[in-house]
Amino acid sequence: MRQSQLFTKTRKEDPKDEVAKNAKLLIRGGFINKELAGVYSYLPLGLRVLNKINNIIREEMNGLGAVELELTALQNPELYEKTNRWAEEAVDVWFKTNLKSGSQLGLGFTHEEAITELMKDHVSSYKDLPVYAYQIQTKFRNEERAKSGLMRGREFLMKDLYSFNDSEESLNDFYDQVKGAYERIYERVGLGDLTYITFASGGSFSKFSHEFQTLSEAGEDTIYVCEEKKFAINKEVLDEETLKEVGIARENLVEKKAIEVGNIFKLGTRFSEPLGLTFTDENGEKRPVVMGSYGIGPGRLMGTVVETLSDEKGIVWPKSIAPFDLHLVWIPGEGDLAAELADKLYDGLTEEGIEVFYDDQVTSAGEKFANADLLGLPYRVIVSDKTLKEGKFELTERATRETRWVDEEELFALLK
Amino acid sequence: MRQSQLFTKTRKEDPKDEVAKNAKLLIRGGFINKELAGVYSYLPLGLRVLNKINNIIREEMNGLGAVELELTALQNPELYEKTNRWAEEAVDVWFKTNLKSGSQLGLGFTHEEAITELMKDHVSSYKDLPVYAYQIQTKFRNEERAKSGLMRGREFLMKDLYSFNDSEESLNDFYDQVKGAYERIYERVGLGDLTYITFASGGSFSKFSHEFQTLSEAGEDTIYVCEEKKFAINKEVLDEETLKEVGIARENLVEKKAIEVGNIFKLGTRFSEPLGLTFTDENGEKRPVVMGSYGIGPGRLMGTVVETLSDEKGIVWPKSIAPFDLHLVWIPGEGDLAAELADKLYDGLTEEGIEVFYDDQVTSAGEKFANADLLGLPYRVIVSDKTLKEGKFELTERATRETRWVDEEELFALLK
Repeated sequence: MRQSQLFTKTRKEDPKDEVAKNAKLLIRGGFINKELAGVYSYLPLGLRVLNKINNIIREEMNGLGAVELELTALQNPELYEKTNRWAEEAVDVWFKTNLKSGSQLGLGFTHEEAITELMKDHVSSYKDLPVYAYQIQTKFRNEERAKSGLMRGREFLMKDLYSFNDSEESLNDFYDQVKGAYERIYERVGLGDLTYITFASGGSFSKFSHEFQTLSEAGEDTIYVCEEKKFAINKEVLDEETLKEVGIARENLVEKKAIEVGNIFKLGTRFSEPLGLTFTDENGEKRPVVMGSYGIGPGRLMGTVVETLSDEKGIVWPKSIAPFDLHLVWIPGEGDLAAELADKLYDGLTEEGIEVFYDDQVTSAGEKFANADLLGLPYRVIVSDKTLKEGKFELTERATRETRWVDEEELFALLK
Repeated sequence: MRQSQLFTKTRKEDPKDEVAKNAKLLIRGGFINKELAGVYSYLPLGLRVLNKINNIIREEMNGLGAVELELTALQNPELYEKTNRWAEEAVDVWFKTNLKSGSQLGLGFTHEEAITELMKDHVSSYKDLPVYAYQIQTKFRNEERAKSGLMRGREFLMKDLYSFNDSEESLNDFYDQVKGAYERIYERVGLGDLTYITFASGGSFSKFSHEFQTLSEAGEDTIYVCEEKKFAINKEVLDEETLKEVGIARENLVEKKAIEVGNIFKLGTRFSEPLGLTFTDENGEKRPVVMGSYGIGPGRLMGTVVETLSDEKGIVWPKSIAPFDLHLVWIPGEGDLAAELADKLYDGLTEEGIEVFYDDQVTSAGEKFANADLLGLPYRVIVSDKTLKEGKFELTERATRETRWVDEEELFALLK
């Protein structure tokens, strides 16, 4: 894409009404726009990142044998009354609204109830199980405070996977498979090294759930990390009993701040019982379906990448989720030759399926470099009068800031 | 995909609480699920159709030089107060909700205000124009009645494109380009022959807008069609003056019922003036940006296809938006040979990138055929003991119901 065809402009100054680094950098780069506190729209560059994250998540979910669907934002209170999650005292993050008839509706802060109810039309026998279904959909949460940019929003995207099994054993099997898929997701979006599977509180059905926590000073959670075993314990469940259970001594744990980037839960029959999702087993007996739920916020992942991998010059996108593979920067000089060379290179790379963001604008070299550093594409190539003289291109890797001269062949080979 | 891996079941009976054909068939086929009146979730098969429609729309929008972004559902009342669209008397389809602080928010029923406000950060000079931006996003409308299935929902997907130009002339040019893109979209989703560009009322800026209307007895609109010139006039603007303007005699028009499948509007400065989106022109003068907006509902398109192209046996998907290219139906018989052949064919076709829905379930042939007719994939291939004997496959085209025997080579050639 030619930069001249993209309407968004970058900003030199931080937005005054943001405190979180991820919001500051993403707004300065024109990736997102603040509509309201905790409510961000995705501008073209941000949407490209988000779609890449979503597609990585989709591949891993499909790999688990899960199928994608899309539930709705508007939710029926009747379902939540059955599970005791409608009243304000039980769930205080509802946004509620009214139909013209006066009856109340909710904006989904989660979808366990909706998907459990839906499955009643499709599951009746053990032969119908297991079922694994997921969506990537907008959630609404009426948070009191929303100052963390993409980390805690009032409206945000969530991938939620739900599992429906005929026994606790088969739930446990699937739960372990999801752990693996989640680890691959964090690895693929560039957060693998910083992300720890973490013991957390389990709710009504099982003693523990698992969170995935990415180390960051911006995190709202405190975790205790065991570097050797590459796992952590959330502060909320750290006691003698837990330490004994996981077989680790207190002195081998280090306290860290972290961002929760995922959470997986064994729900058991917490929702299937009150809502009446049952199946007939091999002996002809009716039993409630055994469920699990598994969440990841793609927008929060994007924010976490910015919090943890950016430097003082701007964002550093991992290749897998960068909005483009390459920032091609043309420096205006004497005559038209450099521009012609840049045009030719842009066309050639694009034809090869390489995603190029082409700075074809007439601005100063300094402005262009600052802009490229802020936007954070993995590679930058400069085409200038100097390039013409050398017969080579100046290539800089954003993450390492290393610059070298490459010829056309090397450049294509590197990017393909 | 193997049918045994898809959790959704088809139904023989129409759902009792639906009157619209599109809702009845789509629910029976397991494409959508009714959450509330006018609120439908998309099950895996339905989501596949929706995504194909969305991608056709995206290709045509990108072809216009428009860039994709994604705005939010939660909307700031301040913007709508400036344009006089917040009060109940002005707009009666708002869903409104409250933050914990007590301040009100709206759920976007449209996004002119939000995108106009957003552009103030990015447009200041004539050099920044034109800008064309679109989204495919959920809209919320508090409709009094919602009985038409996907045709009129309280929560539904909308593609909305917005144009920002420096003059009425350049708006007019772009508006004409959008007409062309819209015609290609209807053509590509299989509604080309039935869809008429239609004069409709224009609102505050221009005398007319244009609707795209698809002929259907299920339509809520009445239009007057001129077959010869392939255009129509909406009843609401049919008067002597309009007839004179379009140069056509009343007797050449035929009254028809139709579904509005798109609407394009010249907005002029209706939103840029109250919200203060201005640019500095070549003479250094500040002027309000000249806007247009262009909508298509992908879900409504899906519903319209079902209303207009289905037959007494079920849905008939056009190839371009069918959830799969082929329904491969295995008929259980003597021994395992037919199943092995079906497996092999499924693997072979899938490897070639052909999207196959494979009925690998042990049910009766009658049930399988009724099911395939209801789901409406373009082609059905039967693999049975008879197939083994013949050494050929029985191929049926869903739209024409014509059956013929083809060998493997013909089958692959047809589907590629």
